[in-house]
Amino acid sequence: MAKRLGRYTLQLERPVSIIGYAAAGSRKEAQGPLGKYFDCINEDSTFGETSWEKAESALQKCAVNKAIKKAGITPGDIDIMLAGDLLNQCIGSTYGARQLGIPYLGLYGACSTMAESLLLAALLTETGLANRCLAATSSHFCSAERQFRFPLEYGGQRTPTSQWTVTGAGACVTALQSGAPYVQAVTIGTIEDYGICDINNMGAAMAPAAFATLCHYFHDTETLPSDYDLILTGDLGMIGTQLLHQLMDEAKLSITANHKDCGLLIYDRLKQDVHAGGSGCGCAASVLCSYILPQLQDGRLQNVLFIATGAMMSPTSVQQGESIPGMAHLLHLSHYFEKEDASC
Amino acid sequence: MAKRLGRYTLQLERPVSIIGYAAAGSRKEAQGPLGKYFDCINEDSTFGETSWEKAESALQKCAVNKAIKKAGITPGDIDIMLAGDLLNQCIGSTYGARQLGIPYLGLYGACSTMAESLLLAALLTETGLANRCLAATSSHFCSAERQFRFPLEYGGQRTPTSQWTVTGAGACVTALQSGAPYVQAVTIGTIEDYGICDINNMGAAMAPAAFATLCHYFHDTETLPSDYDLILTGDLGMIGTQLLHQLMDEAKLSITANHKDCGLLIYDRLKQDVHAGGSGCGCAASVLCSYILPQLQDGRLQNVLFIATGAMMSPTSVQQGESIPGMAHLLHLSHYFEKEDASC
Repeated sequence: MAKRLGRYTLQLERPVSIIGYAAAGSRKEAQGPLGKYFDCINEDSTFGETSWEKAESALQKCAVNKAIKKAGITPGDIDIMLAGDLLNQCIGSTYGARQLGIPYLGLYGACSTMAESLLLAALLTETGLANRCLAATSSHFCSAERQFRFPLEYGGQRTPTSQWTVTGAGACVTALQSGAPYVQAVTIGTIEDYGICDINNMGAAMAPAAFATLCHYFHDTETLPSDYDLILTGDLGMIGTQLLHQLMDEAKLSITANHKDCGLLIYDRLKQDVHAGGSGCGCAASVLCSYILPQLQDGRLQNVLFIATGAMMSPTSVQQGESIPGMAHLLHLSHYFEKEDASC
Repeated sequence: MAKRLGRYTLQLERPVSIIGYAAAGSRKEAQGPLGKYFDCINEDSTFGETSWEKAESALQKCAVNKAIKKAGITPGDIDIMLAGDLLNQCIGSTYGARQLGIPYLGLYGACSTMAESLLLAALLTETGLANRCLAATSSHFCSAERQFRFPLEYGGQRTPTSQWTVTGAGACVTALQSGAPYVQAVTIGTIEDYGICDINNMGAAMAPAAFATLCHYFHDTETLPSDYDLILTGDLGMIGTQLLHQLMDEAKLSITANHKDCGLLIYDRLKQDVHAGGSGCGCAASVLCSYILPQLQDGRLQNVLFIATGAMMSPTSVQQGESIPGMAHLLHLSHYFEKEDASC
């Protein structure tokens, strides 16, 4: 059974495998460098629906249904679903999961939701509380833009620090069995707020949370950045990445050699006009499920730290002059499970 | 360790005690029949803050700090905090928890959040993943009213089926130790949607979810409504209560003899002009933490089913003509722990 390492980290003692996973996206994601790795692409970002919110539900459903299918099971085989998204009252997830009939726990972790849902899924699976869990999240450029910034029709200018919300979704099914990729450990994040108030600079608001969680993880596990093939943050983008590198350097835990950010992987920044990079719950989720998990499955990657980051403000809190609290949850994902002799 | 009973229910095998709990409210709650049981009352519903959203954060902080104090611990003793609320992006909870430094998992379960947070806290505690967890939620009439319905200044007429959002918060600290009240079992809810589209009739939208969860629980545990002193729903109000009684009667599981609803307990409907009753995350949370847990602690109540219900729509989804999905999570709370011989 999972044991606590220090204050923040839980080390899994039994092999939790991600037995099915899928990524869904739309045209801009298909045109990016990772487009060919997505499971489901619908070039029409309405997904045949009459509103952007319904489109996001349809998008998340694509990823969920595909992940369940790839796991070789049916919704009735899943004991608990954990999901959330950026929309007010998380309607992208709730309306998407409405027909599934799976016991449902709604989450709100902003863009950290893929890590939050997957870490809870892994813990509930490892302890035997659930035989199989489903973790899912999504974001949609058009539903996010009009909710957090301006109506699309306004055609507002974007600042150089702004990021482009990914129209994407990811879903993972966990089970207690052999088979890469595995979840080895998780670190639950703390709320970090360095006083950033610029809603067009999410990367800067989230970098301190990624920094805190990484420091907690390295401290708790007594490991170093060089022990991992890849340290993958969720959606810090260009600005947040630079700030995180600086913070990690100052803490003598430099990650520049093996760090990548999903927000910088998913689009070609020079050709796709996304300014500081991609963002949104669907950014970390779709990059993980399209590009990273297959490499962990076949062994091209052995040990990955996945840290999805979230900015926990609302348009209301920002208008009221509040700063933006950041949040980052971490999973150590691997090709081998280290405790192969543990009871299963 | 907790074991699965059927598809929906988890029976705890080790004694998870609610070692600290507190309820906070404002003037209207103080004037209600349960006002004298609240831990913290601030007659000024601004809580000294400059916006209703900040007031809600302050309100939740009152309940959280008091629950931690009553448990005889400090925030540093808590391994995981689980919280959420009704506000867009759950800012009531995030901003309230910002200074605590506790590893944080954000939830969205609408008005079911007290049950969702407490059931996850109980499971994480029972399995030893956390030594102590904190579960919290809140709602505020003024922040909810302007977000979900009309600006307060508009002075809109309320329909007879409408409910009054409770300005209240509740918080519970869990630990694996002896001492009532205990969490005996939990049932995770499914999303239920009977096609109700009236945003002023939340009770009708949530009753089917309470019905489904109660049926799942009675089926999984092979118990009957008469096995419990009290079956306590969250905030069905008058309409939802009538509908739930009807559904349970039709299923031959009548609960009329021992059912109460927090939405009907918290205010005096005849004197306080709340129409169909109270509602909001803070309704179930503050009634549980002020009025029910003390009775479970001293033995006046022995066995209680607590079912907090949530309506998972957003103003946007309702404006788009979508129906309102309901959600209900259940906890079996008790004065004695049945498996006293289990390893601890």
